[in-house]
Amino acid sequence: MTIVNQLKISAVSIKGAKALEQNLLEKISKEKYKPHDLFLSLEKISNIYNVNKTTAQRALHSLVGKNYLYQIHGKGTFVAPPAVTFQVLVIADYETGTNNDFGSIFGIPAFLRGVLKKIDLEKYNYSPVMLTKKKFIEILPDIELIYRSCRGVIFFRNIDIFVKTLPVLKDKNIPSFFYGSDALLESVSNADCLVYNEGGITDLAINHLLKLSHKKISYLYIDESPTQKKRFNLFLQENKKYKFCTENDILYFKTIKELIHNNIIPDIKRLLKNGITAIICGQEEAGVYFLNKCLMAGIKIPGELSVLTISNYPICALTPVPLSAVHIPIEEDAGRCLELLIDIIEHGSKSEKHISKTTIVRRLST
Amino acid sequence: MTIVNQLKISAVSIKGAKALEQNLLEKISKEKYKPHDLFLSLEKISNIYNVNKTTAQRALHSLVGKNYLYQIHGKGTFVAPPAVTFQVLVIADYETGTNNDFGSIFGIPAFLRGVLKKIDLEKYNYSPVMLTKKKFIEILPDIELIYRSCRGVIFFRNIDIFVKTLPVLKDKNIPSFFYGSDALLESVSNADCLVYNEGGITDLAINHLLKLSHKKISYLYIDESPTQKKRFNLFLQENKKYKFCTENDILYFKTIKELIHNNIIPDIKRLLKNGITAIICGQEEAGVYFLNKCLMAGIKIPGELSVLTISNYPICALTPVPLSAVHIPIEEDAGRCLELLIDIIEHGSKSEKHISKTTIVRRLST
Repeated sequence: MTIVNQLKISAVSIKGAKALEQNLLEKISKEKYKPHDLFLSLEKISNIYNVNKTTAQRALHSLVGKNYLYQIHGKGTFVAPPAVTFQVLVIADYETGTNNDFGSIFGIPAFLRGVLKKIDLEKYNYSPVMLTKKKFIEILPDIELIYRSCRGVIFFRNIDIFVKTLPVLKDKNIPSFFYGSDALLESVSNADCLVYNEGGITDLAINHLLKLSHKKISYLYIDESPTQKKRFNLFLQENKKYKFCTENDILYFKTIKELIHNNIIPDIKRLLKNGITAIICGQEEAGVYFLNKCLMAGIKIPGELSVLTISNYPICALTPVPLSAVHIPIEEDAGRCLELLIDIIEHGSKSEKHISKTTIVRRLST
Repeated sequence: MTIVNQLKISAVSIKGAKALEQNLLEKISKEKYKPHDLFLSLEKISNIYNVNKTTAQRALHSLVGKNYLYQIHGKGTFVAPPAVTFQVLVIADYETGTNNDFGSIFGIPAFLRGVLKKIDLEKYNYSPVMLTKKKFIEILPDIELIYRSCRGVIFFRNIDIFVKTLPVLKDKNIPSFFYGSDALLESVSNADCLVYNEGGITDLAINHLLKLSHKKISYLYIDESPTQKKRFNLFLQENKKYKFCTENDILYFKTIKELIHNNIIPDIKRLLKNGITAIICGQEEAGVYFLNKCLMAGIKIPGELSVLTISNYPICALTPVPLSAVHIPIEEDAGRCLELLIDIIEHGSKSEKHISKTTIVRRLST
């Protein structure tokens, strides 16, 4: 046989193999076969489809390469089960998503969107499964049975549950990753995590207002966010030259509901009288409600008072006067959490603390 | 052997089998074995672990029952690949999620949360994979290779892409399901879908305001939502006794940006002068911005003017005066979409059109 003839046959065989592969694939996927069934032998294929063995072999090899079939030496070719997608459990209390709590309305969806954006099955063979705290604790003892392909867990802000379940997960060799404020993480050292720096957030807010030449800045403080308040007080002491405000000028509310439902206009008028020209709202919801109340009372923002909030949820762009805010890039962070976790899963990389990069988003309110 | 003795041995064997199973499971999961590897034979197990064959058999059977191992008659016991999670692709343009477009900020996360809530891997072995329109079209030709365990596709509002790709998916035997407005679906008959009735939404809004004794109702209309406008005009003609408003009283904006950035106070003053006491904002964003503009201009809501918007995103509860809205239960609908799709996948149920149940959520603005 001449070389030209050999090439010719080989080309025909490749073309024939492609068509044959398509035929065999249809046969498999239309579920005439169940996983682990013995597949057609080389001989049968070449008989049924009337092709030579080289063509049949080529088609078979390609299907094995693509994981549609597998071969056991000396036993034959078998139908492989569908490709496995590994699961990453994301623990977040999304059940509360219907409450008017910004963390649920905006934070959880942002985190989730970030995870889903990052998961590209062409690159990462991982799929997220979302669980509430309650559900997670329920399934934890049988996690390997229920989530057979679970390779890791990401905790969104649920520090208590992270701390509580870490030993169990370690015991089961399931890597876990925490996302949230560093202030929350004080109790766990050496945890794999991506955190935003609470102190850093307050510093950013104050420095933004100082740059805009505000000399007397106050703080609105909800009992639920004590770490930022601590940081603000620290600044107050360290930078006496700015005379930010007196302890008396700090607005304190036990709950966000108290801020929403009470008449706070006299408080605001007192701040203005004391020379305060800017206020940092140290909690997610507080900024929006405070701003709305000021505007409805006819206070000029900015002008009479600059308002800045922590943190930057989409609603800050939608208030009657768009609201400046410290931005925690939850969506991007979520993608990074997943990437870091997969790195731990696949390459066993060492545990480390990663810091999220917060920035100021300036809008009209400052 | 007495029965008592038999029971005793059997109990020991069950206890031993449990421990043995745990040992074998660890051996498998710590990945000393790869999928499809030949596993230890009954004889080897009883030798290595020093247990009798009944105990070994019991442990093996249990692991086969839980899909950690599989057996081929006459060939032996093999290590099963991790359990397969089937994928359901959710097509939504979440890339725009950072825009101030309520459909992206609130709609997509709500839909996604609904899907994730419904997916309970103890019951449904399905995981969602989210894709943008662009990405979906890109992977469509090789969908079986890239998403090997894909069993269905849900389209969130993307009617154009649904119509365009339906034939390809049908050809590949992949069920697909549409969620969105029925007005969008006019071009496709016999599609599997869950839809909300656009006309029904407008009727709900008008009837709510009529019940509150408003006789002259106007409509705020953005060029992008023509179907609701059509419906409003129909009502206008059919119910002349109400004299809702003249064509001249309908507020029209080409884009939402035009509404946001223009001074619309003269328009509002004209409406009030013409005796209009209520307005329906026929687009998601329009209600919020319109309400804010009215409040900032000192117009009393309610009192001078009632404002109702379509549709009810969480922000409606967060405006300075909480905003009444027509509620489309996106989150619940998402769960129902998945349930209906899985029913089609698993039981081949017939295609049908399902209707979403919209309601009025009354807040302070009406």
